[in-house]
Amino acid sequence: MEKEVAPIMAQYWEKAEFPFHVIPKLATLSVAGGTIKGYGCPGLSITGSALAMAEIARVDASCSTFILAHSSLAMLTIALCGSEAQKQKYLPSLAQLHTVACWALTEPDYGSDASSLKTIATKVAGGWIIDGPKRWIANSTFADVFLVFARNISTNQINGFIVKKDAPGLRATKIENKIGLRIVQNGDILFKKVFVPDEDRLPGVNSFQDTAKVLSVSRVIVAWQPIGISMGVFDMCHRYLKERKQFGAPLAAFQINQEKLVRMLGNIQAMLLVGWRLCKLYESGKMTPGHASLGKAWNSLKARETVSLGRELLGGNGILADFLVAKAFCDAEPVFSYEGTYDINCLVTGREITGIASFKPAVLGKASRL
Amino acid sequence: MEKEVAPIMAQYWEKAEFPFHVIPKLATLSVAGGTIKGYGCPGLSITGSALAMAEIARVDASCSTFILAHSSLAMLTIALCGSEAQKQKYLPSLAQLHTVACWALTEPDYGSDASSLKTIATKVAGGWIIDGPKRWIANSTFADVFLVFARNISTNQINGFIVKKDAPGLRATKIENKIGLRIVQNGDILFKKVFVPDEDRLPGVNSFQDTAKVLSVSRVIVAWQPIGISMGVFDMCHRYLKERKQFGAPLAAFQINQEKLVRMLGNIQAMLLVGWRLCKLYESGKMTPGHASLGKAWNSLKARETVSLGRELLGGNGILADFLVAKAFCDAEPVFSYEGTYDINCLVTGREITGIASFKPAVLGKASRL
Amino acid sequence: MEKEVAPIMAQYWEKAEFPFHVIPKLATLSVAGGTIKGYGCPGLSITGSALAMAEIARVDASCSTFILAHSSLAMLTIALCGSEAQKQKYLPSLAQLHTVACWALTEPDYGSDASSLKTIATKVAGGWIIDGPKRWIANSTFADVFLVFARNISTNQINGFIVKKDAPGLRATKIENKIGLRIVQNGDILFKKVFVPDEDRLPGVNSFQDTAKVLSVSRVIVAWQPIGISMGVFDMCHRYLKERKQFGAPLAAFQINQEKLVRMLGNIQAMLLVGWRLCKLYESGKMTPGHASLGKAWNSLKARETVSLGRELLGGNGILADFLVAKAFCDAEPVFSYEGTYDINCLVTGREITGIASFKPAVLGKASRL
Amino acid sequence: MEKEVAPIMAQYWEKAEFPFHVIPKLATLSVAGGTIKGYGCPGLSITGSALAMAEIARVDASCSTFILAHSSLAMLTIALCGSEAQKQKYLPSLAQLHTVACWALTEPDYGSDASSLKTIATKVAGGWIIDGPKRWIANSTFADVFLVFARNISTNQINGFIVKKDAPGLRATKIENKIGLRIVQNGDILFKKVFVPDEDRLPGVNSFQDTAKVLSVSRVIVAWQPIGISMGVFDMCHRYLKERKQFGAPLAAFQINQEKLVRMLGNIQAMLLVGWRLCKLYESGKMTPGHASLGKAWNSLKARETVSLGRELLGGNGILADFLVAKAFCDAEPVFSYEGTYDINCLVTGREITGIASFKPAVLGKASRL
Repeated sequence: MEKEVAPIMAQYWEKAEFPFHVIPKLATLSVAGGTIKGYGCPGLSITGSALAMAEIARVDASCSTFILAHSSLAMLTIALCGSEAQKQKYLPSLAQLHTVACWALTEPDYGSDASSLKTIATKVAGGWIIDGPKRWIANSTFADVFLVFARNISTNQINGFIVKKDAPGLRATKIENKIGLRIVQNGDILFKKVFVPDEDRLPGVNSFQDTAKVLSVSRVIVAWQPIGISMGVFDMCHRYLKERKQFGAPLAAFQINQEKLVRMLGNIQAMLLVGWRLCKLYESGKMTPGHASLGKAWNSLKARETVSLGRELLGGNGILADFLVAKAFCDAEPVFSYEGTYDINCLVTGREITGIASFKPAVLGKASRL
Repeated sequence: MEKEVAPIMAQYWEKAEFPFHVIPKLATLSVAGGTIKGYGCPGLSITGSALAMAEIARVDASCSTFILAHSSLAMLTIALCGSEAQKQKYLPSLAQLHTVACWALTEPDYGSDASSLKTIATKVAGGWIIDGPKRWIANSTFADVFLVFARNISTNQINGFIVKKDAPGLRATKIENKIGLRIVQNGDILFKKVFVPDEDRLPGVNSFQDTAKVLSVSRVIVAWQPIGISMGVFDMCHRYLKERKQFGAPLAAFQINQEKLVRMLGNIQAMLLVGWRLCKLYESGKMTPGHASLGKAWNSLKARETVSLGRELLGGNGILADFLVAKAFCDAEPVFSYEGTYDINCLVTGREITGIASFKPAVLGKASRL
Repeated sequence: MEKEVAPIMAQYWEKAEFPFHVIPKLATLSVAGGTIKGYGCPGLSITGSALAMAEIARVDASCSTFILAHSSLAMLTIALCGSEAQKQKYLPSLAQLHTVACWALTEPDYGSDASSLKTIATKVAGGWIIDGPKRWIANSTFADVFLVFARNISTNQINGFIVKKDAPGLRATKIENKIGLRIVQNGDILFKKVFVPDEDRLPGVNSFQDTAKVLSVSRVIVAWQPIGISMGVFDMCHRYLKERKQFGAPLAAFQINQEKLVRMLGNIQAMLLVGWRLCKLYESGKMTPGHASLGKAWNSLKARETVSLGRELLGGNGILADFLVAKAFCDAEPVFSYEGTYDINCLVTGREITGIASFKPAVLGKASRL
Repeated sequence: MEKEVAPIMAQYWEKAEFPFHVIPKLATLSVAGGTIKGYGCPGLSITGSALAMAEIARVDASCSTFILAHSSLAMLTIALCGSEAQKQKYLPSLAQLHTVACWALTEPDYGSDASSLKTIATKVAGGWIIDGPKRWIANSTFADVFLVFARNISTNQINGFIVKKDAPGLRATKIENKIGLRIVQNGDILFKKVFVPDEDRLPGVNSFQDTAKVLSVSRVIVAWQPIGISMGVFDMCHRYLKERKQFGAPLAAFQINQEKLVRMLGNIQAMLLVGWRLCKLYESGKMTPGHASLGKAWNSLKARETVSLGRELLGGNGILADFLVAKAFCDAEPVFSYEGTYDINCLVTGREITGIASFKPAVLGKASRL
């Protein structure tokens, strides 16, 4: 990451383009597939997988999101909900990044309220017809394989499908003008009567709860992105404060700067421990959705505070992507809002610890399924 | 601003380019020159001038910074420190934005410690030779007129000069990869034996205090940029929360969102009153440098908090420049750090209210045993 | 205040006792009755009345709350909702603090949800019978006159009554163990078949809206308590930092302290302007309930931050009531929560700016009357 | 703690008195002496000792501070710096709380700058004469044994002494009017020519560094007080929100309350992990002073935020010590400032990670021209 990725990232971030030539180099890290065992996947421990994600995010958060969508969402869905044949067919190539996957759940009108999907799947002879819009789907402008969730119109339950890039009726358009994770190619997808053969329906996705299961695991990994982002910012600030001089002294000699640097360090140590604890809970089979949501929400909150302090410490150079800190400052924002916004994750945890769901306002009534 | 500027800004911001065709439209606002009376300038009250700046920043902070550098720094310096001939020669064209000015004080090695300039001015027959680097200078990649500060090597005091764009030895290079105010063209300038005739030396700049005088006034105007930025964000959030629905209800119906929106409103009202009070102090001749620094620092701190809340409220759409909020979120950062960082402005005020300067650390003091 | 009150307050605060001998001295300030004209009241402008409250709170917040309950709640209710006879009978003596009043709305089970009162009023020959509990009522352990709100059991609407201290069946018990405003004597009141003659019913209180009217005005005054508290803390910190030395220098010479002091000053200036603006809106007849709620909520939020910074600045001495700052730190807490908690006031303002009430959670349904 | 201590603490806290009858019950916990092995001490692991401290603080922070001063400061000093004879003479009785100890380092004029003591020790025949003031010394109004630090006037180095309660010339006066840890009896001590025999000089204290060694260990334990305080507050809030109803629903059903409760939980989990990690570092011999300072500072910062949220959640009842939260809110303040204020501990860590001490300001530096 330091050698191959760090030097080119400011430039791709600025152009909001994806550095395709980096994919083979990322493949050599052997992290795609994460905890999946077999099928050419690395079979890492969740802690190992999470640490790898943090180390990637330390250099570039976009790279870590590229892998997250590909591995911790799409590949994991195949591994958890796919048939044996699907696993054998798709996972080995995805593990080597010969093919790239994306994961399509969110829709234009359903972000936080991800349980009310509009995209529908209609059974036809030999397969399914998928219709509807998806939004924000990372990697979707160039992915080879799309993991798609749609509402089965007969059962009214969520089903999952594997769709190929060149399926007629599928179109993904790049979302422009992002302020963070600019290297990640998020797409607006439109499915217009896209046919999917029966063999590409995921047998293990039969309700929204099945996607929630994947999200709950991926949130453990997402909780490590803020850690990586913050560590990268700390390193840069630490170096910068010692090198840059003002008023005849290194910036590190100023009380006001030291307190900020130490507050950053305190946050990072805590975030890291929270991430580590989440992995241990997961490994021991004790992790609940509320644990994962709390870890993701709290870490992203602290990352926001930490990168903001870092941005201050770099003064004017804190607004240039070249110095990494500015880029990280911006990249922390989508992380704060994706895979459940900070607020939604708080309310997921809140429901778990109080027994009361509070997602909906009083203008409404019946229980949420979030 | 709403009609001509708002629709095109996301696109120019994304490209980090300046929309030159907008300059004549900005000229029709008749705000360049602000409080300067005569010489074709609008002669506004400082409150009027500040309000105009906020209204421009409400739509696009880059536009307001373009005018700030041109008017509240460069033109004001000519008005306060220039000779009668200089005022007559330069101000009328600048007031109509037929020509554009920039203001060159900051240097690569001297940001916060702006008093220790490296750029030097050497007296020669008929004029001066200027040598040295400047950095961050807004508008400098295309400005017609450069207001430049350099150390007079005989007196060791700061002097000021008007330099023309095409002066041999002058080169400005655009600073790339900014995360905020991307439309503003900041330059790295190098003066290599640039000759300036005697008539273009500003008679009223004879020490660093003279630039501080200009800064003190311009900080009143800068204090209104955070107001404008925050008002724009509030408006967008207010509209968005009422239009966007999740869980079957407008986002405005959720407690957690209402509290954020109200906190934003509270901040904005307070910032606006602080800005207004600063103008009144200025008008009555009672404003001190500490007042101006406090107003700028405090308002930029509250703007940071306000736009951050706004970004949260927009969820995923809060990271797209199209929705204005994401752009404003990023634009608040350079404002927080320029014209004196938050910390430096605090210490300027701190010195005024305690009588003790604390800019420098005690680096050379002997080790503590704590 | 500085001469008579300041020297004795730490001691009464510690004992949680009221310094009755101070009442005649407070009477000489001529502030009780505030804006009420005639009936021996001072007829101050609202700005004058509010400033007086801030100046009292600057020295001791308990004193200001004593007057607030007496004047801005109880006397104001008589002035706004009382008959001409009631005004003539009660106001002159209250204005001179010969008699003391309290204002009894809140109940044990109804704090934030003040619209659902349990205390009831039943019409009987020649008067009314009042039954039920009240809680938190300031001054009630010694007040001569009680302004009481109860639900008329025939109309199911709120009515208001003037009850005398020695009415049979009325008992007020001091609430012990408070951490803030310890000098204020809050009582738990029990009305057990208390008879009130017809002449002591307030003709102007016919619904909850009538009490809301009083609260809306009193919130303008309450919004100035955080200002006074914060100003007192700033003054003490400013003096302390200049006098106390550590590491061979006055504490005011440390960067980290200067930044805190300046942040406090920025907050105070903003709070003061927000309070002032609220008065101007009120005077011009344009103030809405949302304005008053926002002013109270935002000022109390900033006061909390400000006194917390002040407490830090005083180090160990920041936990001793003698140094005023510790006392003010604690006193800011009840102010944050009374006359509508921070959250409730935010939601009142939120309703006004969005048109949607969000007081109730989704487990319920019908509209709130708050 | 729940059975014997919880029910009486609000009342002693209110009176600012120490419940001496509780000492034998605290003795049965077998925690005094903590990690010390032998001499009748429990020989706990540091993690066990720290957890015990947190569990005590969960119910009452004053109790934990009483034990902290007695055990983690005074007893530990004897164990680390005392002679074998001193250990045998003092530790067994102290471990059983038959005798109580205090630890006297801080002085009226030297709080944060603890290295510049004024209290002096002069060698005389058969012993030492101690002269000077101490301040803030917990337990000192009734302690049997005083661990005292004084400047040896021949060597100008810090020496340590064990002084008995009834030594002629020793006087301790209770510090009144505290807002937090009101049960803890802090004293102002005056040593007026107090004679200490040679056998009561601690052979292991020969410089300020030796006290720093003790402080570094005790800071590990102190870092767990904020954890305990916060856990107690969370428990109470969790229960309260489920029991108390407003607007017809439990407070736990409100979004705005759930977010606060979850933020508290996130903080607590992080604090607990930071405390745990500190113990592991200590146990493995890798803990540095900067680690301990960071753990103490960061945890006390988060506790402040956590108890403040808790206080909000309890509304009016959040200002009554009876409900525990108000008491904990106040108790967090002295913890934030003792054993090194937040700022001092940050600067200790800052020095460690930057290599530059920034404790002292540059007061004598020449005026800046900024």
